[in-house]
Parts: sequence; C-alpha cells; structure tokens
Amino acid sequence: MEFMTGIREKEMADLKSVIAEDAEGKQVRTEGTIHTIRDMGEVAFVILRRRDGLLQCVYEEGAAGFELKDLKEGASVRVEGTIRKEARAPHGVELCMCNVWILSEPAAPLPLAVSKWKLNTSLETKLNMRPVSLRNIRERAKFRIQEGIVRGFRDFLYEQGFTEIHTPKIGAKGAEGGSNLFRLDYFHHPAVLAQSPQFYKQMMVGVFDRVFETGPVFRAEKHNTKRHLNEYTSLDLEMGYIDGFEDIMAMETEFLQYMLALLEREYAPELKILDITLPKADRIPAVRFDEAKRLASEKYGRRIRNPYDLEPEEEALIGRYFKEEYGSDFVFVTHYPSKKRPFYAMDDPADPKFTLSFDLLYDGLEITTGGQRIHDYDMLLAKIAARGMTEEGMEQYLDAFKYGMPPHGGLGIGLERLTMKLAGEDNVRETTLFPRDLSRLTP
Amino acid sequence: MEFMTGIREKEMADLKSVIAEDAEGKQVRTEGTIHTIRDMGEVAFVILRRRDGLLQCVYEEGAAGFELKDLKEGASVRVEGTIRKEARAPHGVELCMCNVWILSEPAAPLPLAVSKWKLNTSLETKLNMRPVSLRNIRERAKFRIQEGIVRGFRDFLYEQGFTEIHTPKIGAKGAEGGSNLFRLDYFHHPAVLAQSPQFYKQMMVGVFDRVFETGPVFRAEKHNTKRHLNEYTSLDLEMGYIDGFEDIMAMETEFLQYMLALLEREYAPELKILDITLPKADRIPAVRFDEAKRLASEKYGRRIRNPYDLEPEEEALIGRYFKEEYGSDFVFVTHYPSKKRPFYAMDDPADPKFTLSFDLLYDGLEITTGGQRIHDYDMLLAKIAARGMTEEGMEQYLDAFKYGMPPHGGLGIGLERLTMKLAGEDNVRETTLFPRDLSRLTP
Repeated sequence: MEFMTGIREKEMADLKSVIAEDAEGKQVRTEGTIHTIRDMGEVAFVILRRRDGLLQCVYEEGAAGFELKDLKEGASVRVEGTIRKEARAPHGVELCMCNVWILSEPAAPLPLAVSKWKLNTSLETKLNMRPVSLRNIRERAKFRIQEGIVRGFRDFLYEQGFTEIHTPKIGAKGAEGGSNLFRLDYFHHPAVLAQSPQFYKQMMVGVFDRVFETGPVFRAEKHNTKRHLNEYTSLDLEMGYIDGFEDIMAMETEFLQYMLALLEREYAPELKILDITLPKADRIPAVRFDEAKRLASEKYGRRIRNPYDLEPEEEALIGRYFKEEYGSDFVFVTHYPSKKRPFYAMDDPADPKFTLSFDLLYDGLEITTGGQRIHDYDMLLAKIAARGMTEEGMEQYLDAFKYGMPPHGGLGIGLERLTMKLAGEDNVRETTLFPRDLSRLTP
Repeated sequence: MEFMTGIREKEMADLKSVIAEDAEGKQVRTEGTIHTIRDMGEVAFVILRRRDGLLQCVYEEGAAGFELKDLKEGASVRVEGTIRKEARAPHGVELCMCNVWILSEPAAPLPLAVSKWKLNTSLETKLNMRPVSLRNIRERAKFRIQEGIVRGFRDFLYEQGFTEIHTPKIGAKGAEGGSNLFRLDYFHHPAVLAQSPQFYKQMMVGVFDRVFETGPVFRAEKHNTKRHLNEYTSLDLEMGYIDGFEDIMAMETEFLQYMLALLEREYAPELKILDITLPKADRIPAVRFDEAKRLASEKYGRRIRNPYDLEPEEEALIGRYFKEEYGSDFVFVTHYPSKKRPFYAMDDPADPKFTLSFDLLYDGLEITTGGQRIHDYDMLLAKIAARGMTEEGMEQYLDAFKYGMPPHGGLGIGLERLTMKLAGEDNVRETTLFPRDLSRLTP
C-alpha cells in the first residue's frame, strides 16, 4: 500500500532563494514559463516567468547542454544553472543555464506581446483574451493586490472576533427588493440571485454577534459605466452591540489601516511593478451628506440640483474637496436621505428624513455603503408598512427580530472598485478577472 | 470636521479576560444576549450568550440596582458586575451583577428551547427556523468549525505560493457540460450558473502557476439524499509544474494536517462543545479504484456489479476497510475510469481506460475530486472530438492551452461535507447555514 504523508520537497529554487545574498555560484533547478527570448548571437537572454516574478536566464553557446532553438516563448520548462550576479538583470542576478527540460510547449506563437512592460492593446482585446493578456506582469500584479485586500479584510476581522459565513446565492426573494434581480427557475419554483447577503448577515448577528462574508453578488442593473459590474465580489460585515453607526466607520477605518500595512509588508513587489503609492487611512474625515453637497457646491460652483441624491460628478467633487482641504483620499459621507436607503436602514431619530448611514468615497468614488440597521421588531414592521411593502417572503428574517436582536450595523465593500482605485485604474473591468457587464458574458 | 481614526476601545470585557487567573474581584462591563434565566428565589442565574461563549451572571436580591423581572430571555444587555470564582459555573467563574442596561428586547418568547444543550427538534424545524435554532450553542459551534476549515485552506495555500482568485458564477457555458446546470436569462442572452470554477482556475494556472478559490457552486442535480446540496461551497485549488497527480494528493494531505492543527489550536472550545475527536491525516493510504473495489468486495462479500462505477454503499465499505485494516479515516482512491471523468481529465498513458485522478474518501464519503488535467492543446482537442463534444463556447479556455500551459492538476473539496464528517453529523444540511435542495429555497 502506498501512503501520502505530505508535500515532498523537490528542491526547486524559488526566486527568493535565487536572489539571496549568499546564492552566488550555487547550482540550482527552477521552473517557469519562457516569457521572452532575446537572442544576441553568442549569448541569449531567456526570461522565465514564475509566480513570484521574472528570472533572467542566460544561454551561452557551448556552456549549455542544449540548443537555443529548442526553446520557445510560451513553453514551460525546468532549468538547471548557476547563479551569478548581474547588475543589469531584474533583482541583480541571472542564471547561467546548463540544462533544460521542456515540460510543455505551446501550439502557436502568442497573439499578444505579453512580455512588453505595458500591454499596448485595448481593454476590449485584453478582456477577450483574458487567459493570455493576464500573463503580462503588470496585468497580473493587479490581482495580487486584490488578493491582499481580501486577505487583509478576513485576517483583520478574525482578529476582531468576527465569524466567517457562507450564505446562499440562490433565494426566493431579494434583500433590497424589486427590479435589479436576476431571475431563474429553481426546480419549477421562481428564484432570484442574491444582490447582497444583507438579510443573512443580519440574521447571523443574532447568532455570532459579528459576521463577515466575501462572495459574489449579482445586480441586474442596466448601467453601462466604467464603475458598474453586474456580478462583483462584495466584502460584507455585520456587527452587533454597536453604540452607533460610527462604530462601523471606525471598524472600516481600522480595516483600511490593517490592509494597507499588509500590502506594504507582503505585496511590495506588486506595488513596485504597478508604481503604486498607497493612500493613508489614519484619519478619515466624516461629513454629513447635506454638508458635503454644500461644501462641494460652494467651492466648485456647481449648483445642487437634487438635495436628496448624490450624482457621480458630485461624488467626484466631494472627493476632490477633501483631498484639497484635508489631504485625505477617503471621506465618509454620512446621514443619507431615508428615501434613498433600504427599509432596514435606521432613520435618524433627530430627523427621520435622514438615516444613520454612510458611504465611503475613495478618490471621489463610492466603494462602501453601510450604516446602522433597525433592530426593533415593531419599528421594522412599521417601516415596511410605511413603505407599502409586503412581509411575504421575509418571515424568517423578521423572526430574527421578533425573538431578539442586538443593536447592529454593517457595510459592504466593492472589491473590484477598491482594487481599481488602489491600482490607479479608471475602469473597474481592469481589476476584474472576468467581468460581467451588459454586453459581456464570456470568457 | 469629525475624523475617524480607528476602533475606539470600549472597555467591554470578553470571556477570556473574565476567566483569566487574576480576574477575581475585578469589576467589569460586558455585553451579550440573555440565553436563559434560572430563578432560584433569592438568587437567580442569568446566562449570557456571547460570541466567545456562555457567561454565568448572578442576580442577588438587594445587591443589584435593578429588578430581575426587568430581564427577559432573548434580550440583549450590557452588564456591570464583579468577577468571582464559582466551580460549578461554566469556565469556573461568574459575574455578580450590580447593573444592567437593556439594549434591545424581543417581541415574543423564543419558540425553541435554544438554551438546552441539545436542540430537541427535527432537522426540518431547525432549518425552517434557522436564525433562531442556530442560537443554540452546539448548532452554532459547527459553523465555527466550518470557518476553521476554510481559514486553514486559505492560510495554508498562501504559504504555498497560491494566489486567490474570484471567478464569475454567471457564464455562457458550464465546465462539465450538459444537464446539471441552472439556467437564467442574462439581458436576453442564455446563461448558466457555474457548476465549478474548473475552466477559470485552469486558465489562471497559466498566469499565477498556483491558484485557489473558495466560493459557491451550483448543481441542478435532482438528487435528494443526505449528502447532496444544489448549492454548496467549494474549496478549489489548481497548481502547475506538477510531476504527477500524486503532487495534488500530497498537497491535500498537507492541507488536512495544517487545518487539523489549526482547529486544535484555535477552535478548542468548539471541539469540546461538539465532543469532536479530530481524525489523523499524517499517513493516508492511496489505492487504485479497481483494487479498492476488489478489497472491499472480498472482505465484506458484496458482489461488484459495475466495474466502472463506485456506488455510495461501496464507498462506505472502502472507507470501512481502510479504517479497519489501516486505522485511517481517510483514503485516496485513484485511477477512476475515464468514462466517469470529464474530458479535461488526463488519461493514464499506461491504460487510457483509466485517468490520473483521485477522490478522497473521509469515513466512506467522497469529500474531494481531483487529478491531473490535460495540458497539451492537441491532446485536448482530440479528447473533445473523441467524446463528440463541441468546442463552441470554449474558445478562450482552449486558447490558454494553444498558447502554452504547464503540466497541472487540482482538486475541489466540498466544504459542507467535510464539516459534516468532522462534526460527526450524517446529513449535510446539518452543516450548511442555509441549505438549498430540491425542496428548499428558504430561508
């Protein structure tokens, strides 16, 4: 009988060990895909693309036990060679190849020059050829940054006593109700895709006090803009025993600090590749919705057309205002009008036309919506009635309140938007692995 | 202007600080929901349910600045009191209450006795009343264990150089093709829900070498069994530069070891609540499909009816065999018949009727399917043709291979099934927060 006992070490050098101080002169084996070949005649540079970065390998006629023509761009290879210092190479080292094993070969030459520093092609082409275009170093680096954001979110919340939950994406009814739902047939029952884990995360506050989820949400919105997706990844949290919605903003502020520190510490190569200067989140201004509108309107001379709504251009101006006046990339806009928020939002007792809620703007773009929720059963029923909504399909959600819920609130962060702003992109599709929009369902 | 700078400490004691060695005599504040009240006359025990466990509070007439009748089961409260040792209390301490603040009150008494040690009710009722039934300590503990599994999966894979990805759940075509797909209308285009991230994770091996995803998958299977769900959470990984599918099994073995150690270290209270003895994964037998069938058939006298399929009862017997003969809760069954595996599975060159693939059985139940995939473009095209399939809708998937892919393989783990087996349950719905099956779409 054969037994599996764990990973067998293969003595494959990773980039870190190749560029280590004491590595010079060592003979190592490593693996990667041939990113590009530059043939200079008697010598050729073969750049390997590995998950941890690029490694320059050198082919010298006579020194290697194989012929240069055996190597193809796009081939996956195992290489044996000697490490030597070379100031002009990436990371200051290169590998003098003595042996190569071809693990796999492409059937055709690459249709895009992925080894160029910047992929010189349209967004449409990049998206159409995603599995190829992402082989470009800068393109893929954006998704390493994205990983860091999600990782920071979870690690931070574990530390804060949150429990991770997995809630269903197929359901009988949407959380916010109405029009923006994708519909499907579920064994002959009408069903919808979850536009948010809202109801579930609230119900689970009654169980775990603090919960979070990182998962897909689905919005059948007919927006075709640079900042909308019809499927995106939402970073959701919900927490009980709050004193007010400020507790939620405080939690998000601390998450941002934690996440930015994580990126700086563990994603430095990607930050460098993308030339990202991380923003600061140590002190984020919080301003009322109506006040924010007034400030931006006065400074930039833009008339307020609708006191109950925030147009994208207004958001951008508010972002600009707080950057110019307070040097902050982020701003919390608080007390959104009740009529623009869902029924479960807690109205401000001081003025019920507004809610105890907020958006977080990053560089003038909304990346978070959050706030305190109604926790009192009767208040919730009254609000549902006042909006002319039906309780049908919300029985179990309402039961959570009937049998007692602590004061609570939460937020949802759009992962792709946050990545977009961090990476300095201006279209959310640039920071979505496989975007879904009005006209895109593939790849 | 107000500024958010991070979490403000509230001096709320958590369970850990209350049960600390030097805590006796300290006056603290804490928060929780009243799990149960036991009125003994002059003294009453008020058990608080907090996210970190139960805390016994004592009400003594005269000593407290409030009346016992002010307290209701299901109310969320803030409590002030003095810590004292009490051997009979959970954790050996209790809090003598002097003050209480009611944060929120239920509108009705609880319909289930959630404070009982075991919730004495049917699975149907538990599922129908999920937000209430999960307030039972044992019920919720299962989902803390579930958190630990996912957390272990991610943390382990980060360490192993994997990149986390988020792939779309709405697509134009399914990975395994055919019948088990939920269909929906996507802005007047036919679309399906992803039954697995298979195509995406393979494409991303060409980009990141090693990737993983933890997310929902959707199967429109008409099975109504104790082990099937129509939506579940899949822990998926895919890795390049493998020497064989044994590398995938080795990676899973090491993940199990890592995850079990994490549970032991960080989820000890929940393991204790559920009386779980963790299995060992240090040495997992690997046996060929046909050999496993033969061994089980010979030992237990069950005739092999179909040499190309493994019936659930046969799986159970194979699990039993390796438990009895090798003391192992886990067994890798390898070399599944090609006709039972999807087109992208790598056939065994030594006998193409079988594949370089495996399932992992845990206590006789399949919790993982994995294996090596075809990485050669022409071989993939030939297999698609041989199966009479169309390449339509797979263009970008196939492009990844056309332009070069390393040898690779991967696996998918059913989170709810793994949790079920760890928790010693026999129905996967017991370890699914909100199960979706043939007859259940709510809550």
